[in-house]
Amino acid sequence: MKMIPVGILGATGMVGQHFVKFLQGHPQFEIAWMGASDRSAGKHYSEATSWRLDGVMPLSVAGLVVEECKPGNAPELVFSAMDASVATEIEREFAEAGHAVVSNSRNHRMELDVPLLVPEVNPDHLKLIPVQRKLRGWKGQIATNPNCSTVVLTLALGPLKPFGIKRVIVTTMQAISGAGYPGVASMDINANVIPFIGNEEEKMQQETQKILGDFADDHIAPLEAGVSAHCNRVPVVDGHTETVSVEFTTKPQAADLIHAMQSFSSVPQQRKLHSAPAHPVIYMSEKDRPQPRRDVERERGQTVFVGRLRECAVFHYKFVALGHNTIRGAAGAAVLNAELMLSEGLFGQ
Amino acid sequence: MKMIPVGILGATGMVGQHFVKFLQGHPQFEIAWMGASDRSAGKHYSEATSWRLDGVMPLSVAGLVVEECKPGNAPELVFSAMDASVATEIEREFAEAGHAVVSNSRNHRMELDVPLLVPEVNPDHLKLIPVQRKLRGWKGQIATNPNCSTVVLTLALGPLKPFGIKRVIVTTMQAISGAGYPGVASMDINANVIPFIGNEEEKMQQETQKILGDFADDHIAPLEAGVSAHCNRVPVVDGHTETVSVEFTTKPQAADLIHAMQSFSSVPQQRKLHSAPAHPVIYMSEKDRPQPRRDVERERGQTVFVGRLRECAVFHYKFVALGHNTIRGAAGAAVLNAELMLSEGLFGQ
Amino acid sequence: MKMIPVGILGATGMVGQHFVKFLQGHPQFEIAWMGASDRSAGKHYSEATSWRLDGVMPLSVAGLVVEECKPGNAPELVFSAMDASVATEIEREFAEAGHAVVSNSRNHRMELDVPLLVPEVNPDHLKLIPVQRKLRGWKGQIATNPNCSTVVLTLALGPLKPFGIKRVIVTTMQAISGAGYPGVASMDINANVIPFIGNEEEKMQQETQKILGDFADDHIAPLEAGVSAHCNRVPVVDGHTETVSVEFTTKPQAADLIHAMQSFSSVPQQRKLHSAPAHPVIYMSEKDRPQPRRDVERERGQTVFVGRLRECAVFHYKFVALGHNTIRGAAGAAVLNAELMLSEGLFGQ
Amino acid sequence: MKMIPVGILGATGMVGQHFVKFLQGHPQFEIAWMGASDRSAGKHYSEATSWRLDGVMPLSVAGLVVEECKPGNAPELVFSAMDASVATEIEREFAEAGHAVVSNSRNHRMELDVPLLVPEVNPDHLKLIPVQRKLRGWKGQIATNPNCSTVVLTLALGPLKPFGIKRVIVTTMQAISGAGYPGVASMDINANVIPFIGNEEEKMQQETQKILGDFADDHIAPLEAGVSAHCNRVPVVDGHTETVSVEFTTKPQAADLIHAMQSFSSVPQQRKLHSAPAHPVIYMSEKDRPQPRRDVERERGQTVFVGRLRECAVFHYKFVALGHNTIRGAAGAAVLNAELMLSEGLFGQ
Repeated sequence: MKMIPVGILGATGMVGQHFVKFLQGHPQFEIAWMGASDRSAGKHYSEATSWRLDGVMPLSVAGLVVEECKPGNAPELVFSAMDASVATEIEREFAEAGHAVVSNSRNHRMELDVPLLVPEVNPDHLKLIPVQRKLRGWKGQIATNPNCSTVVLTLALGPLKPFGIKRVIVTTMQAISGAGYPGVASMDINANVIPFIGNEEEKMQQETQKILGDFADDHIAPLEAGVSAHCNRVPVVDGHTETVSVEFTTKPQAADLIHAMQSFSSVPQQRKLHSAPAHPVIYMSEKDRPQPRRDVERERGQTVFVGRLRECAVFHYKFVALGHNTIRGAAGAAVLNAELMLSEGLFGQ
Repeated sequence: MKMIPVGILGATGMVGQHFVKFLQGHPQFEIAWMGASDRSAGKHYSEATSWRLDGVMPLSVAGLVVEECKPGNAPELVFSAMDASVATEIEREFAEAGHAVVSNSRNHRMELDVPLLVPEVNPDHLKLIPVQRKLRGWKGQIATNPNCSTVVLTLALGPLKPFGIKRVIVTTMQAISGAGYPGVASMDINANVIPFIGNEEEKMQQETQKILGDFADDHIAPLEAGVSAHCNRVPVVDGHTETVSVEFTTKPQAADLIHAMQSFSSVPQQRKLHSAPAHPVIYMSEKDRPQPRRDVERERGQTVFVGRLRECAVFHYKFVALGHNTIRGAAGAAVLNAELMLSEGLFGQ
Repeated sequence: MKMIPVGILGATGMVGQHFVKFLQGHPQFEIAWMGASDRSAGKHYSEATSWRLDGVMPLSVAGLVVEECKPGNAPELVFSAMDASVATEIEREFAEAGHAVVSNSRNHRMELDVPLLVPEVNPDHLKLIPVQRKLRGWKGQIATNPNCSTVVLTLALGPLKPFGIKRVIVTTMQAISGAGYPGVASMDINANVIPFIGNEEEKMQQETQKILGDFADDHIAPLEAGVSAHCNRVPVVDGHTETVSVEFTTKPQAADLIHAMQSFSSVPQQRKLHSAPAHPVIYMSEKDRPQPRRDVERERGQTVFVGRLRECAVFHYKFVALGHNTIRGAAGAAVLNAELMLSEGLFGQ
Repeated sequence: MKMIPVGILGATGMVGQHFVKFLQGHPQFEIAWMGASDRSAGKHYSEATSWRLDGVMPLSVAGLVVEECKPGNAPELVFSAMDASVATEIEREFAEAGHAVVSNSRNHRMELDVPLLVPEVNPDHLKLIPVQRKLRGWKGQIATNPNCSTVVLTLALGPLKPFGIKRVIVTTMQAISGAGYPGVASMDINANVIPFIGNEEEKMQQETQKILGDFADDHIAPLEAGVSAHCNRVPVVDGHTETVSVEFTTKPQAADLIHAMQSFSSVPQQRKLHSAPAHPVIYMSEKDRPQPRRDVERERGQTVFVGRLRECAVFHYKFVALGHNTIRGAAGAAVLNAELMLSEGLFGQ
């Protein structure tokens, strides 16, 4: 099969590095173009980048020459790992110039005509792309993936949506890798908890309602459910753990909820997309799982693990969910989005 | 003032050591008797005990000879730091023999005629002592303090009780010191979260309802509020952090809740009990506080810190609370209980 | 190729679990027999074992029935993951009964006729096996791998041996996984350093001299070099980091030492043994590497990483070394030993 | 006694905050003046400073108005907590203008006429002050304290100097607080070891030789002993732990070394300086102590703890030392220096 060249906007940063790592060995996508700030442009990727991830920089990308973040000669498909401070304009320019911009940045997520995708949960939200193109007169497109804490919650709630979700209270215990580099100072988090992450709670609440909402005609009707989030940073390297209490319109059986999670399978699984996990949600029956250090690397980081589903003394049920914040919550999410979009014929024609 | 001799049941364990440490320099109570298992009896405290706390064992107790946990020649006032596996019978024996047993063990907490005290929140629950003595024919008495996670929640909710608490959902992030020694294996908690603590959620839910309940005639009518807890262990040394969402009977003003916390003062403050903090609850206005490593040692570990009170998208308000699990959640709680009981004339006559 | 069945003595413990994990997908060795204590005998491996490693127990072993640690019907090749308190006798019984006992236990390491192997460093020490068989009248054999801290040091020093090692001072910063389960209490190691590991320094000093010694006629003449070790536990999950100062008989060039490490290749590489790393030692030129969390999982955990080789103001040179304590320092070491022994025709005939 | 007003140069940074904290309750020194960058000048200390230490900013300093770092109206005694990038010139200006500059910055430490003090070890190095004044034509003076890792080593070695120190190899395991704020990124140090700290090894080697050297006529003759340091960062909050191997001119008895440490007392103890610990070195006989989290806060952070003195297989003896890097290694060191200088009549006349 012919490889599809891909570009990375913001390639030298921490999220950019996660894209580089996650795309190693991808059977369809090949990194062909690296975009970064003017300061890096013209340098080899290996010179321009302080590699922060485990191990060392893959040799295959070390020699690529970094370019400015301008559409020019970038490939059609570009992943955006740009910092929110610059993403808005640049992503638009690329989309206008005909690129498929698959973005991890938060900037366009909540725009009415931009899909905020979790491919197993709301693949039909891609119907917004024609709306977006028409409205904006674009040849290209922008699609986004949610914030890393949102994706864990929505993948866990996705299979439960048919039971009628009414109210959700969630507390996160988020890994330090979610904050980029240098991110959280060790003096702040070593043997500590920080009970605050800027704007995280608002993002998590709004994004969850949009993702679990329904495509109606030309827009998304957000889920009419109350969602309240408490977001905390804990001294864990990778993996956001979340405790969730849920109230439904009528109380289901616990066994039915667990069955819905275990048997959950959707478009990415049916189409056997490369980055789709065999099981988007794995329910663990051990009494003290999932745990971030022990479970987060399983299934290539693309699965959300759920455990301890039990009755809640206030709502109907409560459970624990865990997902990999830099894989399923960032690079892996965007790559799966691109695979879904490719399978829909939205680019690469 | 003449010093009151005190004994410690289970003196060699981790909780016993916390009693030893907390009682250093106490102006009224002087450790005069140490009880432990048969294996330790007859040895000096310094021989019988592997000191696990910071620093080294106080010299003043090193030479005390450990005795068996039998009433015999123990002082009237005994603190119980015994393991739950043995506390039930031994505490009863001591109470029957006329001792004031001020216990940190969970065994008698939920018995109908045993006070489960948070001195600022429910000092009137001591009215159960005459009921207990009458029912059981005891000259002595048993009073208890709550589980370490409960005390943080109830001290934060205490000032809010007058507003009519209806529903509470709480998630804890608990320190490793709460599990004793050796307690949690480092292989389990290093850079990890364990989303389960055995029986903790049940204890927290029931104890909260009892503590916030009202003394009526000869028993406690538990608070008729739903309480649901998610309990987690995180890699923090001391200090339980809790995220709390609360629904009231009618929605109060945020400013009124904060004022109620800040101005909260109760019997222990009025009587200037030695171990009573000047402010049982301190509200912090910083956006990212309280934090366990930075705040837990303040105010001798006897205050609960609250922050981030804000609207909850599902209930009325949400906030963060923090307390010292081995001080206000264990030894410091029991000592304050004893001071309250002494001020009521329940022993030491 | 026909698979060789293997047994694991002490299969249910932490080290036994590491053998199970490391042997997954091995092209020659297939786990066919599990031995453990009487208490576990008769149960399925899944029942008898609390799986402590990342992820979940491999399905392929879950259904094996655990047997007592008696020779009877175990396969010829058995790996020993037994606790030192029981290994001496049982390993002997198996060797006497004709088994090839490839042991990770410390019990027989320092016996004069037992090879203490690091396959790249002293493969010729296997010449002790005929000596051992003759002396003891055994059909079988015992071969051992070193302590986890020793293997890191000796693999780093192996390539430097030709330069004439005279004196070595080493300080270790050892991971918690080296202590088994429950191992180190979190109250002892969270945000702390423990500057003591029982008997570790003595083991490291003696084992290093034996491993770097020469086979002479019928015994090993230990390396006549002074070795002094300071052993510490640090809050790291996997990977022992060691700082090493070395004095040679005459001062070599730094470049020659680095070249010797980088080009180091030995019998396991020449024979392309399955568990042999392509490069037993990888020299990293970054100024702040190797680091345990970032490097330890590379090369399947079988390589030792060295960095920062520079002049020492007291000895000739100093450097940092890192190795995976539960892989190259335990299960992976023993499996590579077995592969080397198989390639020598010492069993499987 | 009349209080002596003091100023702090670089008052808003992390080291400046440590000065503020350490000086609380000081019986002679009262903070009267705060100097910081132009950006902060004119603001209240509470506005200009993000308080990073445990607890909250002391009320007594919150209202002080921060000034530019110019001599003008600063008190005679100023502590310098300035960043090395600006300290050289500013400290000189203050000394020239007649101030006693007691600096924690590294800039002037190795200058030939500047004392590098550890008051118990080399109080006579203050004889450099008249030399300095004469050479430079200053009315004021500069005195410095060593790097945080050096002070631990030199306090431990100080009592051993009479035995004739010949060679020292030391490995440090340094706390994150030594790196200031934001300092070490949590992504770099969480559950990790970083085997490199920029310029630390060189500083430690040179400073140790100067401190243990002898004042001769008009300069310091450095100790003629080889010192080699390996410096590492570990995930510990406060407290540098160091493993030390020492060779003497002739081998002393272990008991004599331990006695020398235990009985060590010097000018600061004799003069009962306020910040002088009763025992500059405490030898711990437990097999696994000292430990940073358990011991570092003892004795107001001003004592160095030593343990595990035992024979070294390469040099004569080896041991473990621990000291508080932000107290005895920074603010507490400088304050004790000032107390010594005051007792010598070097300022405050």
